[in-house]
Amino acid sequence: MVTKLKRFLIGRPMKSTELAEEKLSKLKALAVLSSDALSSVAYGTEQILLVLMAVGFAALWYSIPISIAVLGLLLVLILSYRQTIHTYSSGGGAYIVAKENLGLPFGLVAGGSLLVDYILTVAVSSSAGTDAITSAFPQLHEHRVLIAILMIAALTLLNLRGITESATILAFPVYLFIIAILVLIVCGIYQYATGGIAAAAPTYGAAVNGITLFLLLKAFSSGCSALTGVEAVSNAIPNFREPAEKNAATTLVMMGAILGTMFLGISMLAYWYGIAPSEKETVVSQIAAATFGRGTMYYFIQAVTAMILFLAANTAFSAFPLLAFMMAKDKFMPHMFMVRGDRLGFSNGIIVLGILSALLIVIFKGDTENLIPLYAIGVFIPFTLSQAGMMRRWLKTRPSGWLLPFFINTIGMITTLTITLIFMVTKFSQVWMVFLFLPAVIIGFRKIHQHYQDIADELRIDICKEKPEVKGSVIVIPVAGVTKVVSSTIGYAKSLTDNIVAVYVGFDEESIEKMEAKWEEWNPGVRLIVLRSRYRSIVKPLVKFIDTVEWKTADTDHITVLFPQFITKKWWHNFLHNQTSLLIRAYLFTRRDVTIATFPYHLQK
Amino acid sequence: MVTKLKRFLIGRPMKSTELAEEKLSKLKALAVLSSDALSSVAYGTEQILLVLMAVGFAALWYSIPISIAVLGLLLVLILSYRQTIHTYSSGGGAYIVAKENLGLPFGLVAGGSLLVDYILTVAVSSSAGTDAITSAFPQLHEHRVLIAILMIAALTLLNLRGITESATILAFPVYLFIIAILVLIVCGIYQYATGGIAAAAPTYGAAVNGITLFLLLKAFSSGCSALTGVEAVSNAIPNFREPAEKNAATTLVMMGAILGTMFLGISMLAYWYGIAPSEKETVVSQIAAATFGRGTMYYFIQAVTAMILFLAANTAFSAFPLLAFMMAKDKFMPHMFMVRGDRLGFSNGIIVLGILSALLIVIFKGDTENLIPLYAIGVFIPFTLSQAGMMRRWLKTRPSGWLLPFFINTIGMITTLTITLIFMVTKFSQVWMVFLFLPAVIIGFRKIHQHYQDIADELRIDICKEKPEVKGSVIVIPVAGVTKVVSSTIGYAKSLTDNIVAVYVGFDEESIEKMEAKWEEWNPGVRLIVLRSRYRSIVKPLVKFIDTVEWKTADTDHITVLFPQFITKKWWHNFLHNQTSLLIRAYLFTRRDVTIATFPYHLQK
Repeated sequence: MVTKLKRFLIGRPMKSTELAEEKLSKLKALAVLSSDALSSVAYGTEQILLVLMAVGFAALWYSIPISIAVLGLLLVLILSYRQTIHTYSSGGGAYIVAKENLGLPFGLVAGGSLLVDYILTVAVSSSAGTDAITSAFPQLHEHRVLIAILMIAALTLLNLRGITESATILAFPVYLFIIAILVLIVCGIYQYATGGIAAAAPTYGAAVNGITLFLLLKAFSSGCSALTGVEAVSNAIPNFREPAEKNAATTLVMMGAILGTMFLGISMLAYWYGIAPSEKETVVSQIAAATFGRGTMYYFIQAVTAMILFLAANTAFSAFPLLAFMMAKDKFMPHMFMVRGDRLGFSNGIIVLGILSALLIVIFKGDTENLIPLYAIGVFIPFTLSQAGMMRRWLKTRPSGWLLPFFINTIGMITTLTITLIFMVTKFSQVWMVFLFLPAVIIGFRKIHQHYQDIADELRIDICKEKPEVKGSVIVIPVAGVTKVVSSTIGYAKSLTDNIVAVYVGFDEESIEKMEAKWEEWNPGVRLIVLRSRYRSIVKPLVKFIDTVEWKTADTDHITVLFPQFITKKWWHNFLHNQTSLLIRAYLFTRRDVTIATFPYHLQK
Repeated sequence: MVTKLKRFLIGRPMKSTELAEEKLSKLKALAVLSSDALSSVAYGTEQILLVLMAVGFAALWYSIPISIAVLGLLLVLILSYRQTIHTYSSGGGAYIVAKENLGLPFGLVAGGSLLVDYILTVAVSSSAGTDAITSAFPQLHEHRVLIAILMIAALTLLNLRGITESATILAFPVYLFIIAILVLIVCGIYQYATGGIAAAAPTYGAAVNGITLFLLLKAFSSGCSALTGVEAVSNAIPNFREPAEKNAATTLVMMGAILGTMFLGISMLAYWYGIAPSEKETVVSQIAAATFGRGTMYYFIQAVTAMILFLAANTAFSAFPLLAFMMAKDKFMPHMFMVRGDRLGFSNGIIVLGILSALLIVIFKGDTENLIPLYAIGVFIPFTLSQAGMMRRWLKTRPSGWLLPFFINTIGMITTLTITLIFMVTKFSQVWMVFLFLPAVIIGFRKIHQHYQDIADELRIDICKEKPEVKGSVIVIPVAGVTKVVSSTIGYAKSLTDNIVAVYVGFDEESIEKMEAKWEEWNPGVRLIVLRSRYRSIVKPLVKFIDTVEWKTADTDHITVLFPQFITKKWWHNFLHNQTSLLIRAYLFTRRDVTIATFPYHLQK
């Protein structure tokens, strides 16, 4: 039944050879990998305006140069990651680039940041999307945790079904969002140009009291939160259809162009329309309302915005399992992240991401806004490391014409490092946790690696010299009476060795004498040893007896404890039989060097 | 750590020979076994007045003759159960008496009623006790389910510690309750005799309109709820110190005398003081307030009343495990109820009772008043059957002077049967469930019995003829590579048989070729069989392979599947190893006729 439910939810299992068919075309990849980046348009401009508004309405004109600066950074990042894609065509996330060029510790910092960040992405995006829904339907407000978790569950299932199928479903809303925002920008500019907007914009270039460099940098770094997600493409090159490298680079540039256009468009309209950030209404909502009025088009824009926020979470569902796979291959993550599921996705990574992000939603009761700065810093640390790694690479390899790419990466590295530092200084109260969890995650990686290394050393054999060593063997059979089960079990044991001991644990003299007499009469050819238990425990005398055998036969014999076990026809029949052997097995198995064998006796009725 | 906690909560384990020391003296037995019966004083009179009040205040004088009738019934029950104690000195509950004299079906009805009733007793008494507490401290009202469950947990622990120890703790409040009520009665009579009470009592013997025989019978049956619990002593004879029979009979008479005195005293005072039942205040509370005013003595009486209601639940904790033990010995209840725990009590019975009654509390959210009639009928069914059984016995055995005891039992049987029928007629809406659960419980008993019978038949062997049959044996070892673990496992298998097959499940040609080459080079003297898995499942190809072996070797060889298994040093290391073998073992174990053996490899690091 469980199997049937699984089939229904995630579809038929697929052969390993079907893997190639699961690859992404450029247009589908754009939908799957860019929703995180594109969704930032919904709040990027607003983050800048919020910081500037601390000084006053007159200061809002600074949003234009700041937006252009962010756009410049976007250009640098796109150019830089294009270089990375061409250099690391098998998937060059920050983990790989930092590890290969800066050394393992930096690689682990980048990988750890990114893994944690993907979890934060899912939590933050799905609760932001839920907020958008509950703003439209306030009666759903009390169910927001449930809604967010259902969305995560839906995304988990979609991704377990496989990459292409989920892409088909997801491409639709992503393109709707792009179209909606572009239509908004075009109509907005038209209205502004034809003088349809009466609002007063703050004077461009006017001197404003109270503006400091620190504040401008803070506004700039806040605006940079619009850039989270651009690294997704370079991580996911193996998911692309061939030629993967070229397709990925093209997709990255397409994404950069769309993101830049939408971000600048929204920032310009916000300035021209004289829009101030408000607690009650988002900037995009204000622009849409001013352009179209609160009609169909307005609600359409709000709906696709909500949808793209949910889909932003989906980017992490592509990226997390791939990065976990790469780190598991390097033995820094558990092996289980290397197993492909029925539908060829790395199902364990998908499931772990779903569970952890749902856990975050529950812990923060759906209020994950405070996690946004943490999430942004978790992106900019690997950005910085990735570009530093590329710089190092150009310096080492020095191919012809290396100066321009080196220069691009240097600019990018300095900018992202600066933004990281600004985040740490200006928002320390929200990002201090990074100093706890990053070391913790890295220690975890190290411990996992150490364990795999230890085991490999311990288990390695010299196949020329070391052959299986044969020793003697003794089989211990706990018995509770003289029955068919005991007879079959002894028969089985005799087919393996003649060195067999039956053990009976008795509580009182009467039953012990009865058992001994019956055994003697039966005479199955196996010695019966009787243990007296004054405390009516079966486990303790048995374990003590096995210890004695173990001590006597150490290095000469293998010890096997063979349990006769009923297999009942109906599940509730298990309640009618004392399950003492389960206890003994669990106890012996972890603590003693004995083999536990269970001989099944299938009851007929 | 679990063991330490267990020791702290329930004390050191005790030897079987210490059982005799755990027996109860008469005074302690009175405390343990009579709290259920004595606590009925707290509501017995009130139940009568409530029915009469339906006609009017003037009708309340009928409570005096009705109370005397209840007292008469009490006398009959005490005399009758005294006879049972002397006849069934090894514990003669209604189950035993009905089974032996009326036949098994009646025994099962009595046993089933009683078992369910003990669960109801615990649920009803502990929530009534909680109500008494929350009446005094209304701020605790919202936590009543929690309080009731904590009380049940405390009682469970006390009983797991052992009978004598819990008796010592419990004797104190029971005797305090007896003293408090007796003081109340004496002082109340003194005040009434000296004319200290101004209230007008209804005229005794006055004709009242609207009084019908039906109503009087209903009032009488309601008053009979004060008699629940008198059977506890006759069930628990094995718990008494020697001479158990005589001690139990004496305890029963003592209990009857105390109960009768208190019940009649409260009824008389209620009449003399002209007390009408009220929704807001109990009758006992009204009498105490009128006698002492709302001072220290009043609160003391209320406190001990609350306490005795909790202790009433404790009676069931003595009776349920004993009855379950007796029925398990007859194979109508699971064997586990026959096992004595560390402290020599039937711990499984105690734990099951605790869990089921706590469940009832949770399901009814602490409002268990509606269960009282169900609970009363659950007592009177076995009462009736027990006395009918005794009647039958006198008729069969006819010892000298059998007529008087026969007469006593006949009167008792007719009365209790009548009360049962009145309950069914007048309170059908509250007791209809008995017609569902009683048949269900009895079918359960039958099914359990059938299963034990079937198994006994199936497992019985002719010890003269049937000896263990020795067949061939083949050991299948699933391997994942060439490591020390595999080498040790093969060494172990070779010590048992030469008929060994190693099985490798490969996902792609590359790894299969590598494995085959390595195995050939190693040459451990065991054939390697390679299974190809296109769907990356290890379980399915392996199970299919074992099916083939099973089919080929059926009736010639035993099949053993031997799993090499890491035992990690740290618990979290288990996450670092795929636990596929757990899955395969669980699957094979229940579905196939193969022995599952696990060869442990204890990792050093």
